[in-house]
Amino acid sequence: MSAKEQMDLYSKHRQTLSDAMAALAERTFYTPYPEHPKAYPADANEIGKTAFGQKLNENYSELNQESEEWIGEEVSPFWQTGLGVKYPKLSVEQWIANSDSAASDWRDCSLEQRAGILIESLDRVKERFFELAYATMHTTGQSFMMSFQASGPHGNDRALEAVAMGVQELSRFPSEVDWVKPMGKFDLTIKKNWKAIPKGIGLVIGCSTFPTWNSVPGLYANLICGNTALVKPHPKAVLPMAMVVAELRTVIKEQGLNPDIVQLTVDSQSDPITKVLAEDSRVKLIDYTGGNAFGDYIEGLNKSTFTEKAGVNSVIIDSVEDLKAVAQNIAFSASLYSGQMCTAPQNVFIAEEVKGPDGTIAYDQIADAISKSVEGIMTHPKMGAGTLGGIQNDQTIRRIKEGGNFGGEISLSPLDVQNEEFENARISSPTVVRMTADQIDSYSHECFGPIVFLIKTENTNESLRIASDLARTKGAITCLAFTTDAEVQASIEDRMNASFTPVSFNLKGAAFVNQHAAFSDFHVSGGNPAGNASFTNPEYINRRFVWVGNRYM
Amino acid sequence: MSAKEQMDLYSKHRQTLSDAMAALAERTFYTPYPEHPKAYPADANEIGKTAFGQKLNENYSELNQESEEWIGEEVSPFWQTGLGVKYPKLSVEQWIANSDSAASDWRDCSLEQRAGILIESLDRVKERFFELAYATMHTTGQSFMMSFQASGPHGNDRALEAVAMGVQELSRFPSEVDWVKPMGKFDLTIKKNWKAIPKGIGLVIGCSTFPTWNSVPGLYANLICGNTALVKPHPKAVLPMAMVVAELRTVIKEQGLNPDIVQLTVDSQSDPITKVLAEDSRVKLIDYTGGNAFGDYIEGLNKSTFTEKAGVNSVIIDSVEDLKAVAQNIAFSASLYSGQMCTAPQNVFIAEEVKGPDGTIAYDQIADAISKSVEGIMTHPKMGAGTLGGIQNDQTIRRIKEGGNFGGEISLSPLDVQNEEFENARISSPTVVRMTADQIDSYSHECFGPIVFLIKTENTNESLRIASDLARTKGAITCLAFTTDAEVQASIEDRMNASFTPVSFNLKGAAFVNQHAAFSDFHVSGGNPAGNASFTNPEYINRRFVWVGNRYM
Repeated sequence: MSAKEQMDLYSKHRQTLSDAMAALAERTFYTPYPEHPKAYPADANEIGKTAFGQKLNENYSELNQESEEWIGEEVSPFWQTGLGVKYPKLSVEQWIANSDSAASDWRDCSLEQRAGILIESLDRVKERFFELAYATMHTTGQSFMMSFQASGPHGNDRALEAVAMGVQELSRFPSEVDWVKPMGKFDLTIKKNWKAIPKGIGLVIGCSTFPTWNSVPGLYANLICGNTALVKPHPKAVLPMAMVVAELRTVIKEQGLNPDIVQLTVDSQSDPITKVLAEDSRVKLIDYTGGNAFGDYIEGLNKSTFTEKAGVNSVIIDSVEDLKAVAQNIAFSASLYSGQMCTAPQNVFIAEEVKGPDGTIAYDQIADAISKSVEGIMTHPKMGAGTLGGIQNDQTIRRIKEGGNFGGEISLSPLDVQNEEFENARISSPTVVRMTADQIDSYSHECFGPIVFLIKTENTNESLRIASDLARTKGAITCLAFTTDAEVQASIEDRMNASFTPVSFNLKGAAFVNQHAAFSDFHVSGGNPAGNASFTNPEYINRRFVWVGNRYM
Repeated sequence: MSAKEQMDLYSKHRQTLSDAMAALAERTFYTPYPEHPKAYPADANEIGKTAFGQKLNENYSELNQESEEWIGEEVSPFWQTGLGVKYPKLSVEQWIANSDSAASDWRDCSLEQRAGILIESLDRVKERFFELAYATMHTTGQSFMMSFQASGPHGNDRALEAVAMGVQELSRFPSEVDWVKPMGKFDLTIKKNWKAIPKGIGLVIGCSTFPTWNSVPGLYANLICGNTALVKPHPKAVLPMAMVVAELRTVIKEQGLNPDIVQLTVDSQSDPITKVLAEDSRVKLIDYTGGNAFGDYIEGLNKSTFTEKAGVNSVIIDSVEDLKAVAQNIAFSASLYSGQMCTAPQNVFIAEEVKGPDGTIAYDQIADAISKSVEGIMTHPKMGAGTLGGIQNDQTIRRIKEGGNFGGEISLSPLDVQNEEFENARISSPTVVRMTADQIDSYSHECFGPIVFLIKTENTNESLRIASDLARTKGAITCLAFTTDAEVQASIEDRMNASFTPVSFNLKGAAFVNQHAAFSDFHVSGGNPAGNASFTNPEYINRRFVWVGNRYM
């Protein structure tokens, strides 16, 4: 293939890349992937649904990877039956050897070639957003709408963001320069070049709740920097990333390159391979989303690691303009996908007395309003099931049930929400628990899933002190605050920011703390125990390659 | 003080900063600090020498730090007597508490204020380059010229480089923006801001050979990012950094800020405090230059670390145009400061048969030429003592003496070089040892100080294989290669770069592999065991602060 042909994909996507790079710097709204299903062709849903159905109970052949063994153990949280999709299982040694063999093909590509290939793969994924949505639904338990948006347009946005930041960083220094130093009687001239050298094999370890959204940033970041990639999905949520990897491999192969530049490395819960992969000396980069214990282990390996672990997200209620609007905003954020989002609020700190438009509002009144709002969403026929989606695995429900009242007072018990479309759906609506500030042992760690603690504090100072301490020591990804007082607002922002936690103030209407938009919001700051990396700041790219300069006379 | 006054220093240095930022991106030659002593006022040398003399046997009061205890144990390698300078010794707890108390002053400064203050301090240091040179000479053993250049203009260049990269990175995203998302029937508008939050206290651990050049990049990088700083110099090389810290504290105090934003934390060899400082939970950033064992310990702490440890630097001789010029270039690089530079070559890999302009040149002929060149420099009355300088400490000589012939054949023993100015100077000229490639146990680790191994290999392939393996497994900061063959050149560059080692080809005349110029050459790649950081790539800055974004409705 000629150099011209290799550059065709770059030409095709140059404008998208350049728009994305501009948005990244300006942090304004940008996406080439509309987020609403209605923006796509009228038959796209049916085509996607059919394509998903055809994958069930079959070997997943789109990876074009030869294998003697095929495995798979995904179970739909909506059907509670297995999907029956099987994926090629090679030995760890074989996967790594393949990755090594493919390394030079990818390293020798120009940055433009790589960018063209990666954005083309995202365009191919876009053609399959509906199929990807069903694959995500039936592995994670997300509702259709969240599955569509998170794995489709929002996931693609995050991947494109990583590519754009990559191109920015990798083209930051000149490839060649004549360095001329005046030495008095003569000039000393040295020719120099600079190269961004990829680190090696990058392993991306996925989670079961956001299998693509949390995995594509690291994957595309590794790839734009010239590293080869191994994608190790959670064994219960493989299909969404299998589709992304398949599209990548197809485009790479079309370009005459070795498709093993990207490989899907599957395992099972009974025979996990993650540690074997992570500890292999040829694996230099590790992206990880998941629990703290394993995340700490990953960070402890002497590698370039990018983790998103658990945090304890807080809401601080200081003063409100419209209690109902505040209660609804919190209730929706806590109910969405049954609190299985890393951005969902868990601890709502409510001052004993909260200033309202018509005087003081007592803690109990606010707690009631939030509980009622949750109940309202749950019992609303058009909202309940769609907001909650399904629970990804039994343990999540069990953990919360076993917690009982967590030492507090149950304000709202799980309600009986029916999903009309999926009668077997595993559903659990949020438990709302009232607590006092001193019951910190109960609320000072992440209780993953559908639970909200309404914590009564003396005043906003106490709320802020506890919330910022928890962010600093246990980690936090979000903080939502309600205040009508500019000084209090400044003080909340300062203190939470000092714990490396972003704050969202007075959200209402269509704005929820759970949402982190690509090209604008950094996701996880990387500064507290909730994770050591951030989608997508410059460091997220720069730690994936090494600048090396050479000199000539 | 008014905001206008606070901005005066920024206005004063704005042009320098902007030139430095441009040079950094273009990687062209740049410095506002001429490297030759002759570029400075005629009386500057005398003034500096006198000022240095006045510091001896006194408490070092310029830090303006109250203290009940004063300590100091520096010994001049040229006099072999103590300097008698004593520095204020507080408790570790007090130093850290001071740093904490000063944090808000510095964090609340604007980026422009910080940049103005930092560049002003460099201007003040410039006024004392000669004094600083004598302080460096009589702690490190560097010759006057190297002391002047390394601690003076070149150190200032590196500090300014860190400031410039800092300003670039910290002003990379808008401070505020209206983010407007079209939602179909309406637009969702969210106000956003982004802040670069400093990580906390930054500890800079200095070394005894390049006390300022290796410490100011991390120090100024920490400071421009808003972190407070503790400077822990090597107890045998305190004075140079004490001067830099003093100038910083003076400028900071003049600006009405707490001078404890920067503190000098001294200790003694018998009662070291480095681990206590490094392990304190309030210390978030650590810069370290020194040996591998301690460097590995530093990297193992769960902090943001920036290390420069030891490496094994190689020379590869494949083919030469002018053997004499090649031999001279290598001999000078290996002799300069008695091989006590982290960039000095140690292992010279020479193919059994090297192509020359008039046919093949045998290994022995090349080894002879290099040995003779070293001898020539040593016995040259104007070069020997000035090139070597002094040995920083006895152990360096002892270690090499005890090595004997390292299993090889001594090609040149240490010569009797006299320093006419300092009769007590601790001097050791390089030992040159011939070896064969299989004696890898002898040359596969850093032998710090004046020693060169001339290693005979079968061919350049073998030279390159061993050199790149050693770079990958033991670390390397430089590689010097001589070849007249374009294909061989490409292959050396590819392979050494893949071990994250820069290569300098065919250096001659005034160009030596030891020199890494600020604004152009990255110093240490950060990709191999010689260190995990690089002066000054973007990552060197970005890991020192955290981007946090807030949202408002």
